Amino acid sequence: MNKFKGHFITFEGGDGAGKSTQIRILQERLTDRGYEVIATREPGGTQISENIREILLDPENTDMDPMTETMLYAAARAQLVSEVIRPALERGAVVICDRFVDSSIAYQGHGRGLGDAVSQINAHGIGDCMPDLTIYLHLDPGIGSQRIGDREKDRIEQEDHEFHLRVSEGFRRQVESDPGRIFVVDAVGSIQEIADRIEEKVMEIIHEV
Amino acid sequence: MNKFKGHFITFEGGDGAGKSTQIRILQERLTDRGYEVIATREPGGTQISENIREILLDPENTDMDPMTETMLYAAARAQLVSEVIRPALERGAVVICDRFVDSSIAYQGHGRGLGDAVSQINAHGIGDCMPDLTIYLHLDPGIGSQRIGDREKDRIEQEDHEFHLRVSEGFRRQVESDPGRIFVVDAVGSIQEIADRIEEKVMEIIHEV
Repeated sequence: MNKFKGHFITFEGGDGAGKSTQIRILQERLTDRGYEVIATREPGGTQISENIREILLDPENTDMDPMTETMLYAAARAQLVSEVIRPALERGAVVICDRFVDSSIAYQGHGRGLGDAVSQINAHGIGDCMPDLTIYLHLDPGIGSQRIGDREKDRIEQEDHEFHLRVSEGFRRQVESDPGRIFVVDAVGSIQEIADRIEEKVMEIIHEV
Repeated sequence: MNKFKGHFITFEGGDGAGKSTQIRILQERLTDRGYEVIATREPGGTQISENIREILLDPENTDMDPMTETMLYAAARAQLVSEVIRPALERGAVVICDRFVDSSIAYQGHGRGLGDAVSQINAHGIGDCMPDLTIYLHLDPGIGSQRIGDREKDRIEQEDHEFHLRVSEGFRRQVESDPGRIFVVDAVGSIQEIADRIEEKVMEIIHEV
């Protein structure tokens, strides 16, 4: 549990796992229950972070060094934490964030092979703002790729299948290493079923505090 | 001395100390002596780093968190190292860079008060690409501010006098801690005199290798 009045919930998972849909439903349900809910996303969520996002996802930036990529994600995250997440948690809101540091560890640490450097760099920007609960929507990377198949892919989505397998393996290891925080939800199933499982877990965490 | 065939020289100093002028002169003199010279600047020097520069120096980004600022400088630097500096050093060129990690330690470490986090973050992007020689053009911060007085100031230049005093103190401490690498040149004097002192020192370092 964090030291704040509020609750910090993050969503993780490969592309096409349905994070946006589930975040929208959870936001509605918590709002209906009377909570102040702030839903945000990474990279982005502040003007400065959205500017960083443009650099990160621009398919033309093919020459980006993996360490540059890691630091840009960490910079966007540091700004989001200081400008949005921390103030919201301090005043008692529920913050739902689409991706957080677990994505950096999976994509840059495992996908790009940068290892522990990723969490070391990010620790400077996150401080004590770690999620109380992380919902990991698990989906076979092949199915995720099919689901997003028709729309235009950003620079990260364009990476090859081997990269996305390493990312998936990265998520698997994080679940193993922090099972108390990361709750795995199978992303194959009806939207309502998945939403019910998520809501149940979230309410459990909120009532624990 | 670094492990590369080439030579890596950086210029540091407050705003208005005359770095650009001295870099241009040194570049001309080394080129006349037959060296391949790559002159570059921070933040910038690659397309991705110039995009990061725009975010960093935009006077409208008044809400930027100091850690975000630190990570953006480090990201721009990591890209410049991997795309420009390291390849040039490997093929034997002389690389002259307008600002490098010492600026981050002075501006973000001392000016913003972030301390050792700054060098820890940067170490991940720089690796073994540390300068063989750093020319520190020393100028009283009050005089520097007067010199740039008439042109439009960027987000960092707009900081108050106290901030620039802390930066100056930061540079002073770095000179103390690494006198073998950092060569202090008094920036009050004729352009030619200063250029001669710099050239003499640079040739000494190049011949040492």
